[in-house]
Amino acid sequence: MQIKQIDYSLYLVTDRSLARGRPTRAIVEAAVRGGVTCVQLREKACSTRTFIKEALVLRGLLHEHGIPLIINDRVDVALAVEADGVHLGQTDMPLPQARAILGDKALIGISAESLDDALRAEAEGADYIGVSPIFTTPTKTDTAPALGLSGLAAIRAAVRLPLIGIGGLNLENAAEVIRHGGSGLAVVSAIVSAENPEAAARQLRAAIERAKVQWR
Amino acid sequence: MQIKQIDYSLYLVTDRSLARGRPTRAIVEAAVRGGVTCVQLREKACSTRTFIKEALVLRGLLHEHGIPLIINDRVDVALAVEADGVHLGQTDMPLPQARAILGDKALIGISAESLDDALRAEAEGADYIGVSPIFTTPTKTDTAPALGLSGLAAIRAAVRLPLIGIGGLNLENAAEVIRHGGSGLAVVSAIVSAENPEAAARQLRAAIERAKVQWR
Repeated sequence: MQIKQIDYSLYLVTDRSLARGRPTRAIVEAAVRGGVTCVQLREKACSTRTFIKEALVLRGLLHEHGIPLIINDRVDVALAVEADGVHLGQTDMPLPQARAILGDKALIGISAESLDDALRAEAEGADYIGVSPIFTTPTKTDTAPALGLSGLAAIRAAVRLPLIGIGGLNLENAAEVIRHGGSGLAVVSAIVSAENPEAAARQLRAAIERAKVQWR
Repeated sequence: MQIKQIDYSLYLVTDRSLARGRPTRAIVEAAVRGGVTCVQLREKACSTRTFIKEALVLRGLLHEHGIPLIINDRVDVALAVEADGVHLGQTDMPLPQARAILGDKALIGISAESLDDALRAEAEGADYIGVSPIFTTPTKTDTAPALGLSGLAAIRAAVRLPLIGIGGLNLENAAEVIRHGGSGLAVVSAIVSAENPEAAARQLRAAIERAKVQWR
């Protein structure tokens, strides 16, 4: 197993419906200034063509800063825009098929809702695991029961891959995610819905870096 | 330009919402017995994993009969199941990107809502064109104005590719589509919603074959 050198510290997942009318591009630009280290473009309702256009815009601005672009669910969109990888949930394309299509260089992240999911993802060659959800959240309503920080720690004890906590994470609990074995935090509304996404990202990143100094 | 040898005479497009509760597999099996020559799997609401599972089931049963399986919109699903090709609308992945991903052997069909769309699709290397819509139809409500049989004939005069009429086609107008230059008919509700999909397919196929004898 080769672990690719990606900084997952502060991983932004976009959501156009939570952006209070602001374009995804503007949110991502602000978040980059604030210090996000990885961006996942998630589009659940637009056409494939619109998804591709949006992804190309983000790829341009992220790659200027050396920040990877991950595409949610859509392997075809990732191929079309030469994104850095895909993030796959348990109802998206199975990992072995995605790996066969995308090759070894692509990042493939898997949402794990249980220790079993995480072990399977590692065995099948995932590059990182999104541990989901740490806490319940109004952002996603179709999630499994919250794993809690203890669930994150249990997965940390069992797998080697980078673990990214997601679900209900914010400035108040960021340090605890790092303390319990998270390589980073994925956030949606904590940045996307923030009055000032740049400031929100900056504060989160600072909290994560402080926690790393303390707990690593 | 290489024209691949596919029989587009009777081209079934699936639609689970119009199948009156019957599974897509059952509709397709019946339609194959009735004589469809090509099947496009269209899924607009299910998860990627469900789409892939459905496509694998259809691929198995179609390939037993030498009938091609075309995937609507999703280049990733087509790759995952090694389908014969994709059908792309004007808001799906642009043809040049799809061709770069799928290679020359894959069938790529394009929905053309105008002569300009058809000319562009031919120039960009489409394998066939879905001329859409010939007539207005309750099946799709987001379509361009109907092209009519005269619109089909105008496209026939300008491009060499196989043309497949779609939109409001049934036993009554099947022969006219062939007469005006169609290589075949694509149907959704005429088979998917039929009381007896096998009989509906058989009657349509017979009407198309009679028209070909008369007008080719």
